[in-house]
Formats: sequence, structure tokens, C-alpha cells
Amino acid sequence: MQDSFSGLYARALAELKKNLPEFSWEQEQVPPGPIPVTNTTAASITGLIDHTALKPGTTAATIKQLCAEALDYHFYSVCVPPCRVQLAAGYLSGREVKVCTVIGFPHGTATKLVKVTEAVEAVARGADEVDMVLNLGALKERNLRLVWEEIQAVKEGIGPGRILKVILETSLLNEEEKVLAALIAVKAGADLVKTSTGFAGGGATVDDVTLLRRTVGSSVGVKASGGIRDLATALAMVRAGASRLGTSSGVQIARELTAR
Amino acid sequence: MQDSFSGLYARALAELKKNLPEFSWEQEQVPPGPIPVTNTTAASITGLIDHTALKPGTTAATIKQLCAEALDYHFYSVCVPPCRVQLAAGYLSGREVKVCTVIGFPHGTATKLVKVTEAVEAVARGADEVDMVLNLGALKERNLRLVWEEIQAVKEGIGPGRILKVILETSLLNEEEKVLAALIAVKAGADLVKTSTGFAGGGATVDDVTLLRRTVGSSVGVKASGGIRDLATALAMVRAGASRLGTSSGVQIARELTAR
Repeated sequence: MQDSFSGLYARALAELKKNLPEFSWEQEQVPPGPIPVTNTTAASITGLIDHTALKPGTTAATIKQLCAEALDYHFYSVCVPPCRVQLAAGYLSGREVKVCTVIGFPHGTATKLVKVTEAVEAVARGADEVDMVLNLGALKERNLRLVWEEIQAVKEGIGPGRILKVILETSLLNEEEKVLAALIAVKAGADLVKTSTGFAGGGATVDDVTLLRRTVGSSVGVKASGGIRDLATALAMVRAGASRLGTSSGVQIARELTAR
Repeated sequence: MQDSFSGLYARALAELKKNLPEFSWEQEQVPPGPIPVTNTTAASITGLIDHTALKPGTTAATIKQLCAEALDYHFYSVCVPPCRVQLAAGYLSGREVKVCTVIGFPHGTATKLVKVTEAVEAVARGADEVDMVLNLGALKERNLRLVWEEIQAVKEGIGPGRILKVILETSLLNEEEKVLAALIAVKAGADLVKTSTGFAGGGATVDDVTLLRRTVGSSVGVKASGGIRDLATALAMVRAGASRLGTSSGVQIARELTAR
């Protein structure tokens, strides 16, 4: 993979220098080898999970149950729709479980103004983390400035101390677009890059997580999401470099762990 | 169908009177019989089409082609993502084809503030019509006031002379919820009720269009959308009471018409 990755990375850097010349992209070096992933044991994997309920029509009762499960199983966070942030933040007030929501979700076709408004309102209502979908059309037509501006504006909007994840929707991107998107996200202030919304017909793959981890290096996180429904898949994602897992099967995964 | 419809309608009215007692729901009478639909001939059906390109990752080139096709085939409008409204409005400036976009799309889980902001920005950038997704979770837990407030606020936001369609996502609703949603939408100012986003795994059905048309009567429109890919389906929807058709297969439908 080294050779093809170097080529991809070089092509992405050339695009970035052309479209966003004011940044010094050179400082982003191709990592010299495999990135050492966190030494996550199976026992600690539940602490990486964003316990997720994002289906349209999700009710208050489901959010309540989600929060209770997150406390019981010590998941990292609950990931809820924007209209449920306040409810979840109420249930989790003063507790260790974080509140995460989604921005421009799941298509990423909202405008910058709307993404920023949604993110600012979310943190005002108690969100600790926001997962925004980048503008896929802009990425594909190499309007990289717009991609960068949206991410940067959301990062600025949520303020310091809150976490921004940028959803790339890898199943809709080619390899060069994945590298491009990840590099722009990091430069614009993303704390993690995230593979998938779970609503585009494709989820996280080991190959994509590996590619993203190599691209962003060790200082930025990688969230694998979409199609993670059992412990084996969760562990494979962590071994490939994921530092966070988005899944609605957290309870199933935790129970598999207990049964081992 | 008369009997079961009357029962559904009565149950929906009882819910509405309980949750939104300040409105006079009694004035909404069950229509005495089948609603006479517009006498749409096959030849005029293209004029009912919202020519649609809403997939994530849709590029500027696709929007340009969509607008050109809408002009060529005399479709009613183009329906584009929020981030493409300005582009489409530029192509169609001074022409008869309208610009339509989507709000809170496709999950309907954005907050009221975000839906209103998105709608206001859309009309400021040239949208003539907005198709908003209602809050499905709120509907399901019978938080009917929130459902009403969001629709009313978006209607107020877009101002007079612009068209509001409310997407019910019928494939995720039971029969009573469909009637409830349609009645709330009409009361809150919707100009049309719309069956589907096209992204929830189910689209328009003849039964749902018939039900919605009976529910809203003749003074409000019904837009059938999702899965309309040929002329026969388009005609069936119109015969069932649809006054607008949302489809990405408008060119195919127009060509079938020419071939007849």
C-alpha cells in the first residue's frame, strides 16, 4: 500500500496547493510507516462508542433508553438528532457520558449558514460534540475552498473545548477524494474524521479506516461508523486505526464482550 | 374505503382537538365523496413535474443539466439541494421554470430554528418553493404542537407568494398519522402535502395519494414523490389526486409521452 498511498497523497497535496495556496500543506508529511494505534483491549472498547440513534422518527422514549444504556455500559457518548439534543443533555447532565449530534445530516447539502446555525444551536442546547457532513458535491467538483470554509466556520461556531468530527461519506468518494477530504478537514480544525453517516448505502471498511489513519497521522482521531454491528467488526476497526466507533449496536457489542 | 376513512378522520380530529384546542378543527369536513381531480391529460403531465436532483454529491454540472432539461421539457420546477439554489436560480432567471428546494431534508430532525433559517435563506437566494420534512418523531409521540409550530414558522419565514410543501414521509407513518400530519400541515399553512423524500425506502403509492387527497380536500395540493419512474406511474398518481409530481425521471416520462 505504501506506493499507492504515496501517489494518492502527492496528488491530493497538489490539488490542495492549487486550490488553497495560502496554507502550508508541505508540513503534512506522509507518515513513515503504519500508525501505532491506541493499545485498546477488548475490555476498553465500549469507552470508544458513540451510542447512536439517528433514524428519522426516533421518539423521546428511544432517546431516554439510549441515554440510560450509555450510562449503564459506559459508552463515550450518545449521538442523537439535533431536535433531541436538549432532551439527551437533560438526562446526562453532570454525568460522564457526552452528548453528540449531527450537522447537515445526512446529505451534507445544507448551506454554510445553516450548518453553522445548527452547530451553534446544538452546543447552546448542550452538545459536547458535533459530527458534520462535508459538502460532497463541492469536494467532487474541487471547490475545495467551500469545503474548507464550511468546516472552519462550524469549528469556530462551536467554540473551544468542543469536538468537531467531519463525516466524509467514504462510500461515495474515490481514494483521492478520501485523502483530499481528510486533509482539508484536519487543516480546517476537525478533531476527528469520520467515515460514514450510515444512510448512504455503505459504512466503514477496514481499508478506509486504514487510509484515513495514514492520512491524518496520529494527532487527529478517526471515527469508524456505519455497519458496525458486532464485536469482531468493532475490534477490526480499532486495529485499523479507529479511535472512536459510531454504532447503534453498542449494547450488542458490550454483551458480546461480557460473554467472552 | 368510506367507512374506514371516516373512522380515521374522526380519530385524527379528536387528537387534534385535544392537542391544539385553539383551532376550530370542526370546519374540516370529511369530503362527501371522491375528490374530482384536475382533468390532466397525458399531454399536460410534464407541467406538473418538479424535476429533481437531490442525491448527496450532486455537482454543479448536474444542476446545469437539470435546469436545461426543465426548460426543454417545460417541467414545473427544478428541485435542488439548498446549497444549489443560487446556481439554479441563476440559470432560470426570468424563465417560467420555478426553483424548489428542500428543508430539514431528508430526516426532518433539524430544529425549528434551523428549518426556518434554511427556508429564509433559500428564498433569499431565489427559491420559489420549499419542501420541508416535518418532525416525524414529534408526530409519533403526539407532540402535535411542535409539528404545527415548525410548519407555521417556515410558512411565515418564506413570506407570501411562495409555496410550502410539507413532506410527510408516508412510508414511515401509519394511516392515522398520515391523516393527522396532513391536517396539521394544512392548518399550519401548507400549500401542498407531499408523500415522500425518496430516501426512506418507500415512495408514493396510489393508496397514500388517495388518502391525502381525501384528507386535504380540493383547496390544497398533493405532491406524489418517490419511485415515480415512468409515465404509467405518473398518470396513476394524478388519477389518484396528485397535483404535483416529484421525480428524477422527468425526461424519461416526457419521452414516453412523445412516443405514444
